[in-house]
Amino acid sequence: MNRWRIVVEYNGAGYVGWQRQKNGHSIQEALEKAIFGFSGENAKVYGAGRTDSGVHALGQVAHFDLKRPTDENTVRDALNAHLREEAISVLDATRVPKAFNARTSARERVYKYRIVNRRAPPALYAGRAWHVGVPLDNQAMHEAAQRLVGHHDFTSFRATTCQAISPIKTLDMLDVRREDFEILITARARSFLQHQVRNMVGTLERVGAGKWTENDVSKALEAKDRSAAGPTAPAYGLYLLSVLYPNSEV
Amino acid sequence: MNRWRIVVEYNGAGYVGWQRQKNGHSIQEALEKAIFGFSGENAKVYGAGRTDSGVHALGQVAHFDLKRPTDENTVRDALNAHLREEAISVLDATRVPKAFNARTSARERVYKYRIVNRRAPPALYAGRAWHVGVPLDNQAMHEAAQRLVGHHDFTSFRATTCQAISPIKTLDMLDVRREDFEILITARARSFLQHQVRNMVGTLERVGAGKWTENDVSKALEAKDRSAAGPTAPAYGLYLLSVLYPNSEV
Repeated sequence: MNRWRIVVEYNGAGYVGWQRQKNGHSIQEALEKAIFGFSGENAKVYGAGRTDSGVHALGQVAHFDLKRPTDENTVRDALNAHLREEAISVLDATRVPKAFNARTSARERVYKYRIVNRRAPPALYAGRAWHVGVPLDNQAMHEAAQRLVGHHDFTSFRATTCQAISPIKTLDMLDVRREDFEILITARARSFLQHQVRNMVGTLERVGAGKWTENDVSKALEAKDRSAAGPTAPAYGLYLLSVLYPNSEV
Repeated sequence: MNRWRIVVEYNGAGYVGWQRQKNGHSIQEALEKAIFGFSGENAKVYGAGRTDSGVHALGQVAHFDLKRPTDENTVRDALNAHLREEAISVLDATRVPKAFNARTSARERVYKYRIVNRRAPPALYAGRAWHVGVPLDNQAMHEAAQRLVGHHDFTSFRATTCQAISPIKTLDMLDVRREDFEILITARARSFLQHQVRNMVGTLERVGAGKWTENDVSKALEAKDRSAAGPTAPAYGLYLLSVLYPNSEV
């Protein structure tokens, strides 16, 4: 039995999200079917980030076990051959030590959020970025974002359905910058609460639009109440960019 | 009667191209319908680049005339409201002097071609970039590209159906660079022959794959014969990036 680590890109549109659900097609299910298609084995796939319905990934990481002895190029290419009808691509497959666990070994998850900030709606980026038609002050957004960086109780920024035991997380980075007509928000943390990135983005958008101040963001955080923070930004602007692991485990 | 200049973004997938055709939906037709929808006027729209079926645009430029007096924000927003069902967005609308002609006033057209150059097929960029699975030497491609820059007879690189009177064009820039797993090719010229960019890209791909040398590219150019150059790269990797005009006419 060998443990395999894969890096996966996907377009989240049309999927119920990473995790298998009774109603609808998930990334996890599509990968498990592709593994079965190529190996005949019923492997279970474990992902580093359980992305919501509609959320994209450029570098999701997952692991699974295979009895069949095979090499790295074969695993990647065979999975992609079986994923031809899906909006999912396996960028890389590596044999890893048995101790590696895509979810629990992860030391850092990096998400990117894209806002198309111009009057005209996106044509080429439709379904791949949140369209905000009013001009946003990205500098004010970046400054307000720094109020959220650090070790905090993020109750105000987690979904009411979030099942994490503790709302206390350490946010390592929350960076806002403009590139032409796009506002790109990068968030880094060991782990995030459900909807945390989208709720932070929805709150920063209020700051960018001039509706909220930096202090309002601090007050929202201190309130420890979901209704005190801004709305949830749409799923289709969010990308799981990469997942980082300690060198010793990969 | 006022002349209007618009800058247009579109996803070329699902369109027969810029120009009206009997069989299928064109960008031109969609824009003319949107103008009629908002003004009740049957304006004809003239584009700077007659992009082929499947080719995208980030900055196509077009002009049309309107009797109805109106302002720039209204034109842009009303067109976008009528384009809601299309993969087309009007980024900007400006009133311009009557002498302005989107096609004949243009001094420079800039195209970008995207190649996803990695073993795994694109998931997020499917239909937006050409997938080449073998490693391409972008430096060799860039060097070979310089053999095409300048004033030449581009017969070897134009579609056999090309209706331009002369095959002689001046290619101002053909730049090849790598960004992570993407190879980006930028082409600039006052004007291009039909399929010229895609035929140059198809030829440079042969160089990148090590099948052709720089000298083969020069020989292909000198042959003045379409069959002497490489194949036509797919339409869906090509983007009309921008069109430049002399300041005096805008």
